[in-house]
Amino acid sequence: MKIKLLDGSVKEYNGPKSIKEIAIDLSTSLGKTVIAGKVNGVVVPCGFVVKQDSEVEIITNKSEMLEPIINTTAGFLAMVAINKIDPKALNAEITYKEHDMEFNTTFFADPRWKMDEIESLQNVVNQLKDKKHVGFQLLDEQILNKEFAHNKYFLELGKKYLQANKMVFCYELDGVKVVSDQIVLDDLSFVKAIEIQQLTGSYWNDNAKNEMLQRVHGLAASGKKILDEKKASLEERRNNDHREINKQLKIFGFDPLIGQGFPLWLPNGTVVKDEIRKYINEKRWEYNYLKVTTPIVGTVQLYKTSGHWDHYRNDMFQPFLGAKGSEEEFVLRPMNCPHHIGVYRQEPHTYKELPMRICEDAFQFRYESSGSLTGLERVRAMEITDTHIFVRPDQIAEEFKSIYKMVKEILETFHIQIDYLSFSMRDPHDKEKYFDDDQMWNQAEAQLESVLKELGVDYKKMPGEAAFYGPKFDIQIRTVQNHEITVATIQLDFLQPQKFDVTYLDADQQLKRPIMIHCAQIGTYERFIATLLEQHKGALPLWLSPNQVEIISIGDEACEAYAEDIKNMLRKEFVRARIDARDERLAWKIREAQINKIPYQLVLGPNELANNTVNYRQYGSEELIEMSKADFLKKILQEIKDKK
Amino acid sequence: MKIKLLDGSVKEYNGPKSIKEIAIDLSTSLGKTVIAGKVNGVVVPCGFVVKQDSEVEIITNKSEMLEPIINTTAGFLAMVAINKIDPKALNAEITYKEHDMEFNTTFFADPRWKMDEIESLQNVVNQLKDKKHVGFQLLDEQILNKEFAHNKYFLELGKKYLQANKMVFCYELDGVKVVSDQIVLDDLSFVKAIEIQQLTGSYWNDNAKNEMLQRVHGLAASGKKILDEKKASLEERRNNDHREINKQLKIFGFDPLIGQGFPLWLPNGTVVKDEIRKYINEKRWEYNYLKVTTPIVGTVQLYKTSGHWDHYRNDMFQPFLGAKGSEEEFVLRPMNCPHHIGVYRQEPHTYKELPMRICEDAFQFRYESSGSLTGLERVRAMEITDTHIFVRPDQIAEEFKSIYKMVKEILETFHIQIDYLSFSMRDPHDKEKYFDDDQMWNQAEAQLESVLKELGVDYKKMPGEAAFYGPKFDIQIRTVQNHEITVATIQLDFLQPQKFDVTYLDADQQLKRPIMIHCAQIGTYERFIATLLEQHKGALPLWLSPNQVEIISIGDEACEAYAEDIKNMLRKEFVRARIDARDERLAWKIREAQINKIPYQLVLGPNELANNTVNYRQYGSEELIEMSKADFLKKILQEIKDKK
Repeated sequence: MKIKLLDGSVKEYNGPKSIKEIAIDLSTSLGKTVIAGKVNGVVVPCGFVVKQDSEVEIITNKSEMLEPIINTTAGFLAMVAINKIDPKALNAEITYKEHDMEFNTTFFADPRWKMDEIESLQNVVNQLKDKKHVGFQLLDEQILNKEFAHNKYFLELGKKYLQANKMVFCYELDGVKVVSDQIVLDDLSFVKAIEIQQLTGSYWNDNAKNEMLQRVHGLAASGKKILDEKKASLEERRNNDHREINKQLKIFGFDPLIGQGFPLWLPNGTVVKDEIRKYINEKRWEYNYLKVTTPIVGTVQLYKTSGHWDHYRNDMFQPFLGAKGSEEEFVLRPMNCPHHIGVYRQEPHTYKELPMRICEDAFQFRYESSGSLTGLERVRAMEITDTHIFVRPDQIAEEFKSIYKMVKEILETFHIQIDYLSFSMRDPHDKEKYFDDDQMWNQAEAQLESVLKELGVDYKKMPGEAAFYGPKFDIQIRTVQNHEITVATIQLDFLQPQKFDVTYLDADQQLKRPIMIHCAQIGTYERFIATLLEQHKGALPLWLSPNQVEIISIGDEACEAYAEDIKNMLRKEFVRARIDARDERLAWKIREAQINKIPYQLVLGPNELANNTVNYRQYGSEELIEMSKADFLKKILQEIKDKK
Repeated sequence: MKIKLLDGSVKEYNGPKSIKEIAIDLSTSLGKTVIAGKVNGVVVPCGFVVKQDSEVEIITNKSEMLEPIINTTAGFLAMVAINKIDPKALNAEITYKEHDMEFNTTFFADPRWKMDEIESLQNVVNQLKDKKHVGFQLLDEQILNKEFAHNKYFLELGKKYLQANKMVFCYELDGVKVVSDQIVLDDLSFVKAIEIQQLTGSYWNDNAKNEMLQRVHGLAASGKKILDEKKASLEERRNNDHREINKQLKIFGFDPLIGQGFPLWLPNGTVVKDEIRKYINEKRWEYNYLKVTTPIVGTVQLYKTSGHWDHYRNDMFQPFLGAKGSEEEFVLRPMNCPHHIGVYRQEPHTYKELPMRICEDAFQFRYESSGSLTGLERVRAMEITDTHIFVRPDQIAEEFKSIYKMVKEILETFHIQIDYLSFSMRDPHDKEKYFDDDQMWNQAEAQLESVLKELGVDYKKMPGEAAFYGPKFDIQIRTVQNHEITVATIQLDFLQPQKFDVTYLDADQQLKRPIMIHCAQIGTYERFIATLLEQHKGALPLWLSPNQVEIISIGDEACEAYAEDIKNMLRKEFVRARIDARDERLAWKIREAQINKIPYQLVLGPNELANNTVNYRQYGSEELIEMSKADFLKKILQEIKDKK
């Protein structure tokens, strides 16, 4: 058997050799540092036996794969520990996603484990960690069925792995066997630190129709320092998650009696939303958009006509009737294009009227399973900054440029950090997802790409990511939880104008077909505000702050009256000022205003009253500055206007 | 038999006498002018025979009842004519409502009549009108059943009349018999003019499940001049109907594919709505309201808790699921109170935080049969200016006064003509419509009434008109079509805080129950804008006008560039200005701007360009005024700000 190594050299062996054996054979130090191998490009554990001519690479503890493998090994140890504690518990799956930083394992136990059993789990894992060696074998379907007949999860997963990878691994420690597709170390001494963090519930295969399993969440690392860094960065991530920030700022809430995933915008959130709305609509005015308001439902027939029924049905809520036995069947609208087409079709149009730019802050709905709901990031009802522009074929390029300019200006105002720009095309082989008209797709994709090139935009091509009606250009960002989301989108659509027989009268007196450009300037308010909160770590700029000025009065009734005067002066000009009249010490109130990230604190006492001034402190600064009240008003109004 | 007359005198007769005979007996002129009689307070036709001691009044052609009776008589003549033309047609009902001005009759014909058959109907009616005498008899149930077995409509109506009035009339002319509860003249010479206007469809008993009848619409009068006046005033009414005004102003539209009764707010309408919204929200800011945005659906369980499911079910759309087989059942929200309670319940509250004023421009839904939909006046989806104020019991009176003041200021800004103020109480016997808690109702009604008295408000008491949860105070107006609608409402609610267990922590550290005050400052945008359009006859004040300035340029390219400058100057300050660049004559453009009721027309030519001025004409005026462009900008911005 010939083994070709990474440096091109070839080793010859008489019989089968495991990765570990090959490593030891190559050098003593390699034998000590090997953590896995790669056979013909496929990663395998140390115990994996090479039986025929192969290319082999020895992976050592210097590799980037060390931390991931330590984590999957920790998952394995958790499983072994679970069965040590509860021999009847059925282990299921080991997973580790780098951006989540934690390893997970799932298991089924009856009775279910309680949170406080984490401690004994941690103890057993600690003991197991000190053992030296993990056993390994490769399973085929026959052995799998025979040895794991008692564990339906291993059976199901094992078959899945066999199908996907043609391999399934079985590891053994202290008499407990685990089926997995992950790499587990044979030498446990690399694992220096494991912390079991949490126990949660999780449906088998993430499907609410299945039974509820339990999920172990843990951290593991090759050293204590790395583990501590992980913990710190997870802590920061948690603190900057918009759901965590919301606990202080009270932007949104939910009420399961109203409906899971349907956000309630609380007073603070409504202020933020309305300020953004005002700004977006000023930009739309600048760019000659026409604002409309259209119904939040449509008939089923409407979406059959538009194509949403065929291509988007699974993301829609179920339809409903007006009254029992009535004929019209309605459904919460999944998208607003057909409604804006409905506006366009109210009257005949001529070529002179195009581009006609119809915009709306439009409520739309998407059915999400309750398990996938995530704060404002993933909701069932959202308000999208939606635009549909009807253009002549000769106007596509110019209009696209103008839209791109507008979107860029908007995102710059909010100081949004972009991850990357994406050009989404169809997958030509996916005839189910995409409307099937090669010519239309080729034309649309070519036009969009040529404009992007002309604009000199640096973008990634994403085949299979287009909308069912056409290609799109997306601006992508990353959430604190490392999810990729679209913050703005521009899409070409040759399909819907055709489906609804939309026309304009051209200069040559012929009825022609306009093209629709879809654009969501800042996507949905829900995701956009989640992004703002995360990217600004909750400290929104002055013009967006729900509470712009917090007034703290120190002194007698005259001071209180003065504070009231200042508040009224500010509120009269729509500055969001309030008095903190709570019966607390000054220092406490100042700290509270900082925690709530309020841009301006005014401290008003006998001195300010006597001088007709205010004393202000800006968020994040320690400095107190005295200023005449008129000057302060002028200053803050200018800053609000400048959207600083 | 003794007959007591209106003047107190008594006549004695040996046997039965008809009204006509009594009139003739009293005087020759009375015999000639009698059109009906009143027997013991009940109006009856001339042919009605008095058989026992009664109080009798002779109604003559000088009475206010002449025109109504001429119209019901015209309806009778239409029925006779229908059977003359189509002996198999089944007549049904004669109606006349004074505010509609027209008489109607309904009938069933197979085949259905076409519009152009109106002409022959008119001809036959004209001939019948020249006949002298209409026969009359009083029916009892036996005769009704025997004589009208072939006409199920007459049977059903006749029985209804017998039950309601203990009487049913039967009139005969030229061998055709008609059953009715209306008065028909015996002497047709009073009927000087009848015009058959239209033929429409109409479900039997206004129920879409029944067969479709046909409805005759006609006008009738005691003289040609009165008929012409009626026609003119109907014409004006039609012109001032918001649906007619909308044809020019393009405020809203509908699209049956999106859904009947779901309005599309077109660009012009969205401008009007947004301007109103801005103003209302400034008032709310002034009065310290907290704005929220809540989901447009709720779970069925939510409305079971609130009581809407029990008391309001028939006005709701059918519920629907998230996905097939999922557990949560949703329904389009019929009202927003439970949602604002959801906001209140996000956090615990203390007595210091009350009154807490939660407001929203909230979409809500009401199922209406397609037949009852009426432009913006009666829709299935509406946006209401909704407020729910949580108060302590000791705050009810003060808060109610403050709300009333705010609503008054708002309605005055819009120059809304009020019809009357209404205090709606429950019907204590209606245990199905109203939540059954006598003490709660008595308390709520007494409190509201005492505040109204204190305010010195002049109101009508309306028993049986309260909401299911409490009494209310409504501001009522009349539409051009003479429908009464509510423009603003203030309601007390002791019930829902209890159902949702809403509390606040009082000064004595006890958890107590707040009271909710519901208020819709201008009701729904839909009805309010319909009202504005009608009351202003389409000429909205400057600040609300969708298009504020129409610019007409006369002259060369330099003039056109100057017009563009002026437009940009205005648009930069958010003045809604546009250039009429159509290839038409000046006079035509000026007339167009008048028809579209645009507040300012600017005519810009070489003279204005040279002087750096504008020449403006206000809507409804002929005068052209020249002014520097800076002054014009200042003037128009001030007028917009002043909401003149």
